[in-house]
Amino acid sequence: MAVNVPLIGELAPVAGVRIGTANAGIKQTERDDLTLMVLDEGATVAGVFTQSAFRAPPVLLAEQRLKGARALIINSGNANAATGELGLQDARSVCDSVCEQVLDLPADSVLPFSTGVIGERLPLQAMRNGVTVAAQKLRADAWNDAARAIMTTDTVPKGVSRSVQVQRQPVQITGIAKGSGMIKPNMATMLAFMAVDASVPADVLQPMLKRIADVSFNRVTVDGDTSTNDAFMLVATGAGPVRLQAADSEALSEIEQALTEVAQELAISIARDGEGATKFVTVRVNGGASSQDCLEVAYAIAESPLVKTAIFAGDPNWGRFCMAIGRAKAQVDPAKVSLYLDDVCIARNGMVAEGYVEAQAAEVMEKDELTVNVDLGLGDASEWIWTCDFSYDYVKINAEYRS
Amino acid sequence: MAVNVPLIGELAPVAGVRIGTANAGIKQTERDDLTLMVLDEGATVAGVFTQSAFRAPPVLLAEQRLKGARALIINSGNANAATGELGLQDARSVCDSVCEQVLDLPADSVLPFSTGVIGERLPLQAMRNGVTVAAQKLRADAWNDAARAIMTTDTVPKGVSRSVQVQRQPVQITGIAKGSGMIKPNMATMLAFMAVDASVPADVLQPMLKRIADVSFNRVTVDGDTSTNDAFMLVATGAGPVRLQAADSEALSEIEQALTEVAQELAISIARDGEGATKFVTVRVNGGASSQDCLEVAYAIAESPLVKTAIFAGDPNWGRFCMAIGRAKAQVDPAKVSLYLDDVCIARNGMVAEGYVEAQAAEVMEKDELTVNVDLGLGDASEWIWTCDFSYDYVKINAEYRS
Repeated sequence: MAVNVPLIGELAPVAGVRIGTANAGIKQTERDDLTLMVLDEGATVAGVFTQSAFRAPPVLLAEQRLKGARALIINSGNANAATGELGLQDARSVCDSVCEQVLDLPADSVLPFSTGVIGERLPLQAMRNGVTVAAQKLRADAWNDAARAIMTTDTVPKGVSRSVQVQRQPVQITGIAKGSGMIKPNMATMLAFMAVDASVPADVLQPMLKRIADVSFNRVTVDGDTSTNDAFMLVATGAGPVRLQAADSEALSEIEQALTEVAQELAISIARDGEGATKFVTVRVNGGASSQDCLEVAYAIAESPLVKTAIFAGDPNWGRFCMAIGRAKAQVDPAKVSLYLDDVCIARNGMVAEGYVEAQAAEVMEKDELTVNVDLGLGDASEWIWTCDFSYDYVKINAEYRS
Repeated sequence: MAVNVPLIGELAPVAGVRIGTANAGIKQTERDDLTLMVLDEGATVAGVFTQSAFRAPPVLLAEQRLKGARALIINSGNANAATGELGLQDARSVCDSVCEQVLDLPADSVLPFSTGVIGERLPLQAMRNGVTVAAQKLRADAWNDAARAIMTTDTVPKGVSRSVQVQRQPVQITGIAKGSGMIKPNMATMLAFMAVDASVPADVLQPMLKRIADVSFNRVTVDGDTSTNDAFMLVATGAGPVRLQAADSEALSEIEQALTEVAQELAISIARDGEGATKFVTVRVNGGASSQDCLEVAYAIAESPLVKTAIFAGDPNWGRFCMAIGRAKAQVDPAKVSLYLDDVCIARNGMVAEGYVEAQAAEVMEKDELTVNVDLGLGDASEWIWTCDFSYDYVKINAEYRS
């Protein structure tokens, strides 16, 4: 199931990035499961990675090789996580095979990314063969193939392209992402890759990526479970006409805005395609004493199994929202709390709103997209989270799929 | 569903406590939904209550009237939560009707407790009529009736009686509890009542109750959702032969031990009867740098939807355990983590254990009771949590029941 995930359309090439995919047989399906991205010399790369203590070996290696990155090798079907020193050797070995196939790549310039089952060794020979195939297919217009090859329990590929004008010249952005379960990114999400053909200095690109992650992927929760392998990578190839320095603050902020919009579209797609999702839900919390308080309340609502099952059932059970708000680690005064479903006021000052008609709220709950609006009535802070409901299919998918 | 919840048996009276129940029609079922407990003069009463910011009016009133408590009036079917000032008036009114029916009770000596749907007003007239009926039925041996009358989505009543010898004289303890969903008590749980016929000074009883709650009800999580109405009450009637002073430390610790055992049995029953539960799971975390770290890791495992659905499916998917350990807010070094299902070692030093045979772990996962043992390998701290799995029926119950 999935809730109005936008169709991916034709993803535009980004000058300076070539992509090849292959079916390495890791997942034993008809679908490609290996993606090789090669960057022309001169690209700068930024990345943010999962904050899990159980960071997977490919995450460790990718972070270590961020400076000087020239290629990304991405596999689905096996996360190479909780595999210890052997997993690190395996990841290195796959990267080395990329250097053997793509001749001008310096050693240690290949970054590995893995997603899939945790705790099993990578099928090394199969992956090496896959690298050989993918390297032969490298071309600029294979972003759609890559969006498909990085999927696991995703029901649809996710990708966005956008062209903007900066300094009166065109800038091309394309991004892809995957993720459906084990989704509560903490500083990053399960495999998202964006490229822009502008040139952006590395020391500008990395903090920019952190800001973008904070208002896009870091706002999504499907099940509150943070993956061992989350990574969000941003490449500025510099192969397009726009070349920026740290001083070009206006142009940089235009690019950041465009990148943020692409990242948010991808992040929203992940919530829409949450495992078993039948509804896409925005939880917005206003009037908090601090941003942190707003986020605590938003997460308490968005991750409450009782709230998520009520939304699945279309039941405007506002008691469950109160319960969730009450257990949040935030400053809350029940007598000041108001609650709206879309624009239907359900509760005011901690009690059922005067003139509340349940049929109106039930109508909102019938919709496949809705906003839970909370006003804490304490201050000026405001934040939001994107999430989905909790259905039989979430249990089914996770009782049957080994992630 | 429920996992080996012990049959309740005949609950023993506790001298100094009389109980009457009634069907007040709050829930519109055949079952009693109102319980009146009257305490003889001289009883001391301790209580711990939910830490939710959205504490229900009856919780506020009960806490305020703790000193001088002489009667408890408990209803199921309506939580009288998120009802504001009107809810407080309603709770007072129900308590007043108890004073009208039970003539020797001082004003403000009645404590109200409510459980059920949140956000609706109490049906006052129906409850007053119920109080009249219950007051006429007061007798010592009605604990079993009370255990039944406080149930909501519980599939079975929960109660434990125990006799112990203290200072060579008999002490009688009986306790009852209810709770099945919205269960992650924070300092208390959804309605548990225990009585002992010893005399215990109030300033000893209250801290004793806090210690007992911390190792019993506070160790249970079904869905991580903390209720607005949790309360755990302990009455020492002083109507039995044993009369203790604060100085009787040995005798007090014997009674505390017996009370703790009764509370733990009740708490375990709540996890066994968790909504939709098909498996009863103990999560034990050893080797932590601190108790808090151990609890963080235990809760991260016990509340992970991905772990709970894997346990439901009987899938020894140890990657999901790693994920949960990794996202806990605790000091964790993956290279030192070991994981056992019962006594089958699955992972050692953050990787699959040498010689691990999945069939052995699968055998453990087939059982309806199992222990997840984690060793963090960092220190001497050790803690545990009781929980259950996450099945289709949890979604079904909560998509259909309005709590």
